[in-house]
Amino acid sequence: MNVDEIIKKLNLKFRNIEGERLILAITCDENKNVLMTAFMNEEALKETLKTGYMHYYSTSRKKLWKKGEESGNVQKLKRFYRDCDGDALLFIVEQKGVACHEGYYSCFHYKIEDGELKITEEYYSQSSK
Amino acid sequence: MNVDEIIKKLNLKFRNIEGERLILAITCDENKNVLMTAFMNEEALKETLKTGYMHYYSTSRKKLWKKGEESGNVQKLKRFYRDCDGDALLFIVEQKGVACHEGYYSCFHYKIEDGELKITEEYYSQSSK
Repeated sequence: MNVDEIIKKLNLKFRNIEGERLILAITCDENKNVLMTAFMNEEALKETLKTGYMHYYSTSRKKLWKKGEESGNVQKLKRFYRDCDGDALLFIVEQKGVACHEGYYSCFHYKIEDGELKITEEYYSQSSK
Repeated sequence: MNVDEIIKKLNLKFRNIEGERLILAITCDENKNVLMTAFMNEEALKETLKTGYMHYYSTSRKKLWKKGEESGNVQKLKRFYRDCDGDALLFIVEQKGVACHEGYYSCFHYKIEDGELKITEEYYSQSSK
């Protein structure tokens, strides 16, 4: 099955996000740690499926981007799932290096503690990195 | 710290989604299974923090909803994390019953197999329910 056929079968429900037709991508490692979330337009999904590496759509730069293109921290796609209403895909990837541009393994490294937003690695430290 | 102060500290970046100011919520169980993703406006986040139970914002019904209000499948909040750019929160919850309105534990129960979109429970079957 080619990429266009896969996308047709997925029957996605693109959302109006920042004026673009996008879906949500949630990206996890094999240990089920959520690494990041980002948006995808149809082109980003096509590139991801064609190349086997995660591509997203940047609403601020208004363009497609390959994760790790500059940092080398690419995400190799292993498999993915669609949710019930079709506006989100969950991707299981092999993460090279760290996922977050701030240098942390996961983008979800902030927590409110003692009245301040503090950096924590507790969320994903329970599983191997 | 009261709820308004917590929200201020979170320094969230609300997105323009379907014409509303929303953030993304990713909801997981203690075994790191992603149960669902949905949107939140500030009111939904406030109600979640005040009551300790997950509330979301429905873009189709254009209103706040408490997860499990009708089904009884409520989600008790344990803790949560913010991502690096502040447009997404990851909530760890205690899920009563199933998360998906289609009767599955997680909303991510679809996969392309043999050219068809098929229901699978493989994503979350590796961990205890």
